[in-house]
Amino acid sequence: MIATQAFDPETFRREAREIIDWIADYWQTLVNKPVLSQVDPGWVRAQLPMLAPEQPESLQAVLADMDRVIMPGLTHWQHPGFFAYFPANTSGPSIYGELLTAGLGVQGMLWATSPACTELETHVLDWLQQLLGLPARFASTATGGGVIQDSASSGVLCALIAARERATAQQSNASGLHQREQPLVAYTSTDAHSSVEKAVAIAGIGRDWIRKIPTNTRGEMDTTALAAAMRGDADSGNRPFFVAATVGTTSCGAFDPVLEIATCTRLHNAWLHIDAAWAGAAAICPELRQAIVAGAECADSWGFNPHKWLLVNFDCHTLWVADRGALTRALSVKPEYLHNPASQSGAVIDYSDWQVPLGRRFRALKLWMTLRMIGAHALRQHILQHVALAAEFAGWVRADPRFELLCEPSLSLVCFALRAGDKASAELLYSVNQSGVLFCSHAKVSGRYAIRLAIGGTLTQKVHVASAWQALITCADALEKSQS
Amino acid sequence: MIATQAFDPETFRREAREIIDWIADYWQTLVNKPVLSQVDPGWVRAQLPMLAPEQPESLQAVLADMDRVIMPGLTHWQHPGFFAYFPANTSGPSIYGELLTAGLGVQGMLWATSPACTELETHVLDWLQQLLGLPARFASTATGGGVIQDSASSGVLCALIAARERATAQQSNASGLHQREQPLVAYTSTDAHSSVEKAVAIAGIGRDWIRKIPTNTRGEMDTTALAAAMRGDADSGNRPFFVAATVGTTSCGAFDPVLEIATCTRLHNAWLHIDAAWAGAAAICPELRQAIVAGAECADSWGFNPHKWLLVNFDCHTLWVADRGALTRALSVKPEYLHNPASQSGAVIDYSDWQVPLGRRFRALKLWMTLRMIGAHALRQHILQHVALAAEFAGWVRADPRFELLCEPSLSLVCFALRAGDKASAELLYSVNQSGVLFCSHAKVSGRYAIRLAIGGTLTQKVHVASAWQALITCADALEKSQS
Repeated sequence: MIATQAFDPETFRREAREIIDWIADYWQTLVNKPVLSQVDPGWVRAQLPMLAPEQPESLQAVLADMDRVIMPGLTHWQHPGFFAYFPANTSGPSIYGELLTAGLGVQGMLWATSPACTELETHVLDWLQQLLGLPARFASTATGGGVIQDSASSGVLCALIAARERATAQQSNASGLHQREQPLVAYTSTDAHSSVEKAVAIAGIGRDWIRKIPTNTRGEMDTTALAAAMRGDADSGNRPFFVAATVGTTSCGAFDPVLEIATCTRLHNAWLHIDAAWAGAAAICPELRQAIVAGAECADSWGFNPHKWLLVNFDCHTLWVADRGALTRALSVKPEYLHNPASQSGAVIDYSDWQVPLGRRFRALKLWMTLRMIGAHALRQHILQHVALAAEFAGWVRADPRFELLCEPSLSLVCFALRAGDKASAELLYSVNQSGVLFCSHAKVSGRYAIRLAIGGTLTQKVHVASAWQALITCADALEKSQS
Repeated sequence: MIATQAFDPETFRREAREIIDWIADYWQTLVNKPVLSQVDPGWVRAQLPMLAPEQPESLQAVLADMDRVIMPGLTHWQHPGFFAYFPANTSGPSIYGELLTAGLGVQGMLWATSPACTELETHVLDWLQQLLGLPARFASTATGGGVIQDSASSGVLCALIAARERATAQQSNASGLHQREQPLVAYTSTDAHSSVEKAVAIAGIGRDWIRKIPTNTRGEMDTTALAAAMRGDADSGNRPFFVAATVGTTSCGAFDPVLEIATCTRLHNAWLHIDAAWAGAAAICPELRQAIVAGAECADSWGFNPHKWLLVNFDCHTLWVADRGALTRALSVKPEYLHNPASQSGAVIDYSDWQVPLGRRFRALKLWMTLRMIGAHALRQHILQHVALAAEFAGWVRADPRFELLCEPSLSLVCFALRAGDKASAELLYSVNQSGVLFCSHAKVSGRYAIRLAIGGTLTQKVHVASAWQALITCADALEKSQS
């Protein structure tokens, strides 16, 4: 009776509790583990048998391997000393949401395949649009609406495809870009996320047709250069069709001047996409909002990642569009076997028309549970405390003559370096990451090698930021000594 | 102290157990619920408050809303009477895997960002390649390797982009398809999944450049027509570059003749992708394997969905490529902030180079736990019992003079109709789905309206298939009576 083996409620109650306890123990001991995995390539695989087992193994056997094999191979993204890249934080309620999603196992490709999966998503994205102070046109009750995607990469790809269709009068999906005399041109800044370039390549536009506009010393797109590039393309018979502006760049957290960019996109009737993947979460705080949503009323699409800094676990990118028809005209494919009266009535959203994949998990649950069980007020405190910690850390950097800030901190991101130069900074980063106390990553900021400290972990408090600074100066001391 | 509110281990132990019990109760009572949601559009949203809460709400409040608001809006994909589309089955171990994934919260975009996340995936996909009897060249130890994607749609898109790059000597990502004199042409059958067409549109090839090759009466691609179409394109100066063959079509489960198709792709040096999204799982059974993997040794890429029929919950598509370099050359983008010694050494896999998104969850855990805790032997029994049930159901259809099979059952899929015609079949389907006992979907098979019964649910046993047939004949009786 395989059904019983696959899912027996009483076994499930017992075993799932063991997993719950294992996870709770993990979080309780997390702070004592080295943040960054220390294994060599191939170590994890070398611990595993060559073939899948024929007969079932016990949960105990699997959990023992979690401890023995998986644990050493993990870099602990939930460790309070994780400051690399951008955070991918989570929370109890978000884990409950994922658990319910897996336990229900519904697939919401169409409204009809589970109406609650679609309607909760639409509803919670309207909640979020209001919490962030995004323009009303992004609400589902207006002409727009929001959708959950796996990542900002997929979000920008969908926006780009919608823009491509709009710019070609709904011809590019049908005829492709072959033999097109007027090339489409996209624009973003040199500091934009690599996903813009990846989307342009995937969409058949080609990387040669993306103009990477230079940034000023603060990392913000130079709009004079943008205007000149768009005009130049238009004069040469090309078609400027898409601009991706970044609110909170990966390197240094810079905010592109969206309002000035919007003047350019309007002039050329180009699609304006705003990538606020990391910084967007901070718009829930009225004191931080203005700089983040400025110009959003001019955008065709706007996306951020609740999975970065809003206590919802990866994957949860939220993308809003001002004109949902532009998205669905570009992405809808409805074969006979998906036809159903609700879709044909036009009264419902079928989210498979808003994304690349057909199928979809019930991801709205984790967003809903996080918003409800933590509440908007505490989420704002979560953001504000990290912003305050970044300011404090920046003060310590400023006060140490060996270090310098490479730019002013942006929200909870601090980019700094050793005055001794790029090589010294890279050595310091390597050495401090080996200590196990923290994990920072790096970027190029104004041509310099920058150590990036991105605060945002679920458990990250002042004590962890202070320990990170302590570890940095200890390593800097040791490196100085070894070189003298 | 927001960190404590976001994740407190003791609260988590207590609350997560309540969720576990809620899920176990759900599965225990599932069979008593109507399979198909009966709500009208807008009903779910109308039950929800207009704004997100400021202050935290209790788990009890959320679970009460799960019962009151979400439950009526669900179509129960795990109900043993769910026979629509293809199954999206799951299992206890798979749910444990999702729970661990959420609880660990690691993000495996690079090997370096959590080596175990990458290495376990590579390893488990090698396990699966052997279990399925796929050619050795798809193993990571040869020139190929496997990757988990969210869905078959994303899998075929990645394969198509790799094919596009190969056919253009690595030029299409860079230069795009603009001003290209020789259009690229893709081929698939009229019965192929809509995701092929969607991928071709997204990639800028254009739907006009996909040739939908007719099928024979069994729904298999006509390879004479394929050969003629490819030759015709080549003669006209077009470039045949990609063929998607289907092993187990959505409409009726037909298997395209892969070996004959491979003769055509070889002649034109076109990429051969095999979409075995549903049927692929059955290759773990030696008695079913031959028809499923025949010709796989000629394929450049081969994908199936463990999330359909292998007791791993959505999302889990597994894609193998014969030449991993072809995939990574097409999809790798490595900005400065992702540079790290392991990537630069070339000794590791960075799975962000194998997919559209940058970030990724630790999805290998659910596949690993399912394979280990259920074991290969029981997974085979799971498949075989559904195939046997489909044969039995087909016998009942054959024996009832009002009904007819529209084709021979394929694995666990049965397509049938009322002899009274399409309208009668559509009315029967509508009426039986309203009964709540089962949920079937429909397709066009040889131009006829087919009722599709796809057996594959985790809990689906003979009694449920027999009840489905009983409900169908009861509804057919009622419809006959109402029309006489």
